[in-house]
Amino acid sequence: MAVTIKDVAEKVGVSVTTVSRVLNNRGYLSESLKQKVNDAMEELNYHPSEVARSLLRKKSNIIGLILPDISHPFFGEVTKHIEAYAYEQGYKLMLCNSLHHKKKEKEYIDLLRASRVDGIIMGSHTMSVNDYKSINLPLVSLDRQISKSIPFIASDNYQGGVLATRLLLRKKCRSIAYLSGNLRLNLLAKQRHDAFLEQVRGQDVEYTVRQTDLNGFKYKDYEKLVSSLFEERPELDGVFASSDMLALQVLKQCRRLGRAVPGQVKVIGYDGIAALDAEDLTTIVQPIKKMGELAVQYLLQQIAGEPVPLETILPVRLSEKGTT
Amino acid sequence: MAVTIKDVAEKVGVSVTTVSRVLNNRGYLSESLKQKVNDAMEELNYHPSEVARSLLRKKSNIIGLILPDISHPFFGEVTKHIEAYAYEQGYKLMLCNSLHHKKKEKEYIDLLRASRVDGIIMGSHTMSVNDYKSINLPLVSLDRQISKSIPFIASDNYQGGVLATRLLLRKKCRSIAYLSGNLRLNLLAKQRHDAFLEQVRGQDVEYTVRQTDLNGFKYKDYEKLVSSLFEERPELDGVFASSDMLALQVLKQCRRLGRAVPGQVKVIGYDGIAALDAEDLTTIVQPIKKMGELAVQYLLQQIAGEPVPLETILPVRLSEKGTT
Repeated sequence: MAVTIKDVAEKVGVSVTTVSRVLNNRGYLSESLKQKVNDAMEELNYHPSEVARSLLRKKSNIIGLILPDISHPFFGEVTKHIEAYAYEQGYKLMLCNSLHHKKKEKEYIDLLRASRVDGIIMGSHTMSVNDYKSINLPLVSLDRQISKSIPFIASDNYQGGVLATRLLLRKKCRSIAYLSGNLRLNLLAKQRHDAFLEQVRGQDVEYTVRQTDLNGFKYKDYEKLVSSLFEERPELDGVFASSDMLALQVLKQCRRLGRAVPGQVKVIGYDGIAALDAEDLTTIVQPIKKMGELAVQYLLQQIAGEPVPLETILPVRLSEKGTT
Repeated sequence: MAVTIKDVAEKVGVSVTTVSRVLNNRGYLSESLKQKVNDAMEELNYHPSEVARSLLRKKSNIIGLILPDISHPFFGEVTKHIEAYAYEQGYKLMLCNSLHHKKKEKEYIDLLRASRVDGIIMGSHTMSVNDYKSINLPLVSLDRQISKSIPFIASDNYQGGVLATRLLLRKKCRSIAYLSGNLRLNLLAKQRHDAFLEQVRGQDVEYTVRQTDLNGFKYKDYEKLVSSLFEERPELDGVFASSDMLALQVLKQCRRLGRAVPGQVKVIGYDGIAALDAEDLTTIVQPIKKMGELAVQYLLQQIAGEPVPLETILPVRLSEKGTT
């Protein structure tokens, strides 16, 4: 039976990835480790396929990541996990911040192609679907279904919407607002909105839906949106904010107006951002780490020519804290 | 007089960078723009130096950025500005998250060298000074003086410490705590601590200094630190937290203990993170955008063989909001 890279890895007591790194002289490896791997290969008479090696060498081992805004804590957190997992697999990360500019996003894709990245993770949502389809590289999309042929990873937005709305109903809220990013962006997050409507309709509650404009994460705009909401609906006693960042603006407005949370107004956010742990915010927790890791894994599998699931929906959970 | 690239740029009505991109076929450029630039070069009889062009071509136009943790909102924000400015200059960004691991940081530097990045911005603080010195690439360090020969960019930590402490004294705080990251990391941020001590000494106030441990941004550890502080010092009426993230933990603890902010306890943070705008937190604002942009600018100047200042200290300002 032919000796495989796995046999070499087992003999040395390291991972297949490590042996592959030695073969391709990729990443940092100590001289003693390289020696051990080379000795094992000689002892086992292991000859890596030259075709495989040259194919491997043709790769840049760089992944491109296009995001709307790295300074948004959700994207900061998902990027941390994407980077850590890619690194473990011997890949580097090229970071592209589209800042919601369609032109920049398009330029970046050309740049990434010219830099011969092996694949792209798209966490952005500005470009038209056709632009994406013309990208001739392995792709994974985060939280957006670009087309039927491009794999996407999302968490269960519908279930998140159900959990959040039901909590507010259970807590006897009588006038509920749903606050969200722009619904025209055609993100999967719109399902939270759909779930909200299905849950409140037919119930004995007042409800309203407010959305931010298309131009990205402008905290001052969030603030205005929330402030006009409370002016128009002074009786409001429940808010489902479709991001933790939006929920923070709701809490701020409640402090300003002297509305007690959760006594007079109950607030639930969305995302479960670790950096906001101190907020004591009730929220729907997305599996951010798992989403980031799977995005990398499915990209690498495509690069290796392996099939991957086209749709991946991960479960969310309700984290009930001090604001409901 | 010889025709220069500037003449071409002026004729077309674009920037020198854009002409340089056409010459080097770098970045995304429309066909019509390329045509205009080429026409102008022909008309002006402009011949770019082949030496200059080949030198340019040898570059990867990639900058490496090593950070402790991109999910920390301060680093997310500085990265946003680094990326945006680098992009304007025709450079891509390779993101390296050291996650406070010395080994990973070291491996990353080798990886970056192998990928032929043109230079590295170091926003990390795990490696020993000697490791940094052995990096044979243009370097800029953020918020840390690595050695006398490596340019660093920081904001005025000492002045920030003075402003924050004086505010608490002016507000008649009588028992003040300074909370900070680990002081042994030898970051320039330690000057905030020094300024705090100089301001409180000789005043009729009680004071104490608490620091987090070395292992990075663990919010649960922040929480414990703050909770034990309030247990030991129930009379505490002023806290200077050396990051906004630490300040959030102080606010949380105050909510838990039922201490009114700013009535019973005054809290000032540090950094001025835009994403935390909703917090209404009094803080010392670092010029994060300027720091990021200068880091890129000084790196590119080094890459071009130009001298840069070794020390750059940017001013900070006090933003007084609702917590003091």
